Amino acid sequence: MNLDSIDCCVSSAYSQSLNGTRLGDTAEETMSIREYIKSSRHIVVPNHDDRKIAVINSVLSSFGLPRAVHLCIPTNSPDLTRTPAVSKALMALDITGADLVIARGRLGVPGSGSMLVIMDSRGRILSASLSPSHLYHAKSISDAVTHEMEEALVRVGFQKEKI
Amino acid sequence: MNLDSIDCCVSSAYSQSLNGTRLGDTAEETMSIREYIKSSRHIVVPNHDDRKIAVINSVLSSFGLPRAVHLCIPTNSPDLTRTPAVSKALMALDITGADLVIARGRLGVPGSGSMLVIMDSRGRILSASLSPSHLYHAKSISDAVTHEMEEALVRVGFQKEKI
Repeated sequence: MNLDSIDCCVSSAYSQSLNGTRLGDTAEETMSIREYIKSSRHIVVPNHDDRKIAVINSVLSSFGLPRAVHLCIPTNSPDLTRTPAVSKALMALDITGADLVIARGRLGVPGSGSMLVIMDSRGRILSASLSPSHLYHAKSISDAVTHEMEEALVRVGFQKEKI
Repeated sequence: MNLDSIDCCVSSAYSQSLNGTRLGDTAEETMSIREYIKSSRHIVVPNHDDRKIAVINSVLSSFGLPRAVHLCIPTNSPDLTRTPAVSKALMALDITGADLVIARGRLGVPGSGSMLVIMDSRGRILSASLSPSHLYHAKSISDAVTHEMEEALVRVGFQKEKI
């Protein structure tokens, strides 16, 4: 785990924003996110059942990343918040102190579709992906989670390993 | 504007979550989001310049939705928070009291790519969409915003109007 690199990027980005010189994400920033994820040893996926963990581990493996473990907790209480997916990730972090949390839940109000969020050990959002409400796509849960997990990694510069 | 419908959906979803009977988004919930967006009269897009407003209005028009207005404010302070796009939307809401805010900014930590968020008059997230870090796509800002705005609408059941 290398939090220092992300901390440096946050500090530098803060200065750029305050000075009005910020020009968007840099290669160094996305690399620091990838390095943090790659070096995580304790990765948890909170859910009331274990339907998602196999799919998520399959994707992590295809990107050459460490495996996650299932954190079996009742996850209906985050659904009572305004940002259920983020709340679910924070709940898992506060219970486990994991290096990395991968949580999937509702984006916002009921009807707003789903969000998969990747969070570091301090509760910061490293990446995420969204799916439409299941009413508007024909994917199985397994296919939707696979797509979301891949997208969340690709959008910060990860590539699938060649077989 | 019809907040009552969303309030009813939130109340009902809370009960379902507490009872362990929640089965995901319902057609009534996504309809209440669409009805709220369709009936919004004062829609603002906060940004330090007006590069995004024309693109966003073009998309809104193609879905038969009301036009938004540009809210010209310095938006570097939300970049100092953990969730810049959501903070930018809340900042615009607290300044204007708009019915609807459409804000685009960074998702999370520096390097985490962008998020477009659609927020109601109470600060609740109705929909959103994400783009990868600009380092990993070849789209212009205009094309990226068009895609994000369309996706944020389609994922809650909106369809483009036929010409």
